[in-house]
Amino acid sequence: MSDFASQTEPAAAAHEIGDVDAYMVRLGKAARMAATQMRRAVTADKNGALLAMADHLQRDRVAVLAANAEDLARGRESGLDAALLDRLALDDARLDAMIEGLRQVAALPDPVGEIDGLHARPSGIQVGQMRVPLGVIGIIYESRPNVTMEAASLCLKSGNACILRGGSEAWASNAAIASCIRSGLREAGLPEATVQVVSTTDRAAVGCLISMPEYVDVIIPRGGKSLIERVSREASVPVIKHLDGVCHVYIDATADPEKALAIAVNAKTQRYGTCNTMETLLVDAPVSESLLPRLAAAYAEHGVALRGCDRTRAVLGDIPVASEEDWYAEYLAPVLAIRVVDGIEAAIEHIERYGSHHTDAIITDHYGLARRFMAEVDSSSVIVNASTRFADGFEYGLGAEIGISTDKLHARGPVGLEGLTTRKYVVLGDGQVRR
Amino acid sequence: MSDFASQTEPAAAAHEIGDVDAYMVRLGKAARMAATQMRRAVTADKNGALLAMADHLQRDRVAVLAANAEDLARGRESGLDAALLDRLALDDARLDAMIEGLRQVAALPDPVGEIDGLHARPSGIQVGQMRVPLGVIGIIYESRPNVTMEAASLCLKSGNACILRGGSEAWASNAAIASCIRSGLREAGLPEATVQVVSTTDRAAVGCLISMPEYVDVIIPRGGKSLIERVSREASVPVIKHLDGVCHVYIDATADPEKALAIAVNAKTQRYGTCNTMETLLVDAPVSESLLPRLAAAYAEHGVALRGCDRTRAVLGDIPVASEEDWYAEYLAPVLAIRVVDGIEAAIEHIERYGSHHTDAIITDHYGLARRFMAEVDSSSVIVNASTRFADGFEYGLGAEIGISTDKLHARGPVGLEGLTTRKYVVLGDGQVRR
Repeated sequence: MSDFASQTEPAAAAHEIGDVDAYMVRLGKAARMAATQMRRAVTADKNGALLAMADHLQRDRVAVLAANAEDLARGRESGLDAALLDRLALDDARLDAMIEGLRQVAALPDPVGEIDGLHARPSGIQVGQMRVPLGVIGIIYESRPNVTMEAASLCLKSGNACILRGGSEAWASNAAIASCIRSGLREAGLPEATVQVVSTTDRAAVGCLISMPEYVDVIIPRGGKSLIERVSREASVPVIKHLDGVCHVYIDATADPEKALAIAVNAKTQRYGTCNTMETLLVDAPVSESLLPRLAAAYAEHGVALRGCDRTRAVLGDIPVASEEDWYAEYLAPVLAIRVVDGIEAAIEHIERYGSHHTDAIITDHYGLARRFMAEVDSSSVIVNASTRFADGFEYGLGAEIGISTDKLHARGPVGLEGLTTRKYVVLGDGQVRR
Repeated sequence: MSDFASQTEPAAAAHEIGDVDAYMVRLGKAARMAATQMRRAVTADKNGALLAMADHLQRDRVAVLAANAEDLARGRESGLDAALLDRLALDDARLDAMIEGLRQVAALPDPVGEIDGLHARPSGIQVGQMRVPLGVIGIIYESRPNVTMEAASLCLKSGNACILRGGSEAWASNAAIASCIRSGLREAGLPEATVQVVSTTDRAAVGCLISMPEYVDVIIPRGGKSLIERVSREASVPVIKHLDGVCHVYIDATADPEKALAIAVNAKTQRYGTCNTMETLLVDAPVSESLLPRLAAAYAEHGVALRGCDRTRAVLGDIPVASEEDWYAEYLAPVLAIRVVDGIEAAIEHIERYGSHHTDAIITDHYGLARRFMAEVDSSSVIVNASTRFADGFEYGLGAEIGISTDKLHARGPVGLEGLTTRKYVVLGDGQVRR
């Protein structure tokens, strides 16, 4: 029995569509056709559409905010919690950020068409790899309506068509944003089906979207762990997923203590709710007595609750013991687990056993240990002497990101425009045949 | 109900293992541990193991051939057809090729550890991408025992551990080859579990292998379409798959007729059973009357049976009409479907509708049309003025290939050592924290 059985979400019972399967197949076919046209769209037209979308959003400000107010009122009525309402809310500052985001994506270099490594073979043919759009991308996300514009802009710039399925609580906001998107596409002479926003709140739409490999090339779920796990389990379309970030900082005995302190505090406290926030701190035994009290004092200032292994508690005294579950935990909160380990070997073993292969850092001034940590830690980002909080598309210079992949195939780590493309082989000949 | 329900294949009822699930989990755990050690294996040790494996195969020639003779006898008894027996058979020439293959893989550059694009960011960190092994690769294949050595060598060189599940009809041959592999690994000081050959012929082993994401990072099925489809449908581990090759050659009116003739004949007749063989020929209407009779004469010489659309038949007369199914067909035989089309637009439309996105070629002397075909045909290899038969790892200079992927994510087209690796981000800092 599918987790996405037909069931309209409570917040928006009004937006039903008779035959969801048939509706989604219509969207799929239109997207496939748009993708074919988008493969030959030139950069100037794609940028033109992005800038026109920004202008429409600017002009339709009042309408978009009014639609959002509707969603917020309905959300309050149906008892959404404060955090959800905050993610759902748009205001002038958030609209400005969306408009600015569109202009930034327009300014990014277009990855499509680039040919790498073209070289001559003994047979006389030349072989290279050309970067091309993936085709049709399905994106499933939750309450934040600005994701609609962000996802649309990245898919469009990378030459893909996309089908966006946002949260039902943002239905009116997404519809208003979709209207700006369509106007922008139309003005640039690009097919309107390049970006389609699913207009039913029936959950069966998700089940359809993830099982139409003939129309959809890849699914990107953005949201809570349970959404991503359900989508991965049920999808017959390949999924680029971003699961949890159980990130570690390991302070080796060879670390510069001041840098270690600064990084360990920043990695935990700079923001609590992000996937690249440190959740477990590993401290090399020889420096545990000198560093742990200073770290504990700094964390206390930030109101971070600590729990530790027995050796940590032997130094810090009265903090709760970290259970086996703590080592697996993604707190997303001012809570930190601390473990004292015996050197890099034990640190790597802990990270490989309990971590989520997202982002892990070592603090050391020892060349060989830095090199070893980089080679052996099997995570999407491996960091030497810097905060785990750097692991994102903007900090890495991708310009923007659609998510951070914890998969190993295709895209690993922050996924920008390049992650939304693939490479095909191109062969240039002059009549060559195979002997 | 799983297609891989517990069921011992008829050819080898002898090789059963009590609890297949527990057995496969043991292999999985050992592979995961070996993969961890292989991540830090240096190139010299990996090459040492490959060369030692070649020496052992050379020394154990008699034993391997005796084991193969056993398989062949059992195969004849159980009524395997001639083609299968041929794929199963080893002889001195095939052993020599396996030994030579090992030496070639040892001579290939090691992709692991390469760092691309390391660049400084405004924050002061340096960001790059490091090529690393995928981890544990499961390979499921059919009768050819030389695949055991080929797959083992490519996985080992790229720093991965692998679990190989060959066909039950090659059980004894695979066991003999596995023994050479283990000896080679041992001599080089690498973990023996780096390459494990599944020693049960119970089909349930396949079902286990494709649903242990905690121990296996990717599955590569090699074999018939039904095997690959079943694996893709049931796997919870990501699959790199190679489905059918319905390849096209499109002869545009601007083609050099002599080159067109040579390529169209080579692409069909150089080998019939390969996935990069042309299955449908598209001919631009203005040159159909001049080219089709010459093409038909050449195909007749090779004994290729033609079938065509009405316009083809209007020129060639008495050939059968091509049905809708013919346009979808991968004949893998001396059979060719021919269609007359009106220009590049119709050709691309046909290829996108009926093709399998494997390999497609255009023959033209027109710059703009060549450029358009390259950009718009959504296939893993797009070829201008050369035979589709060039689409393989050796011709492209990859050195060796483990298959040809028709997927879009991760690896597309011929998959060599690089396709068995992934890239993680590495960040080098000097105490940087995020502001």
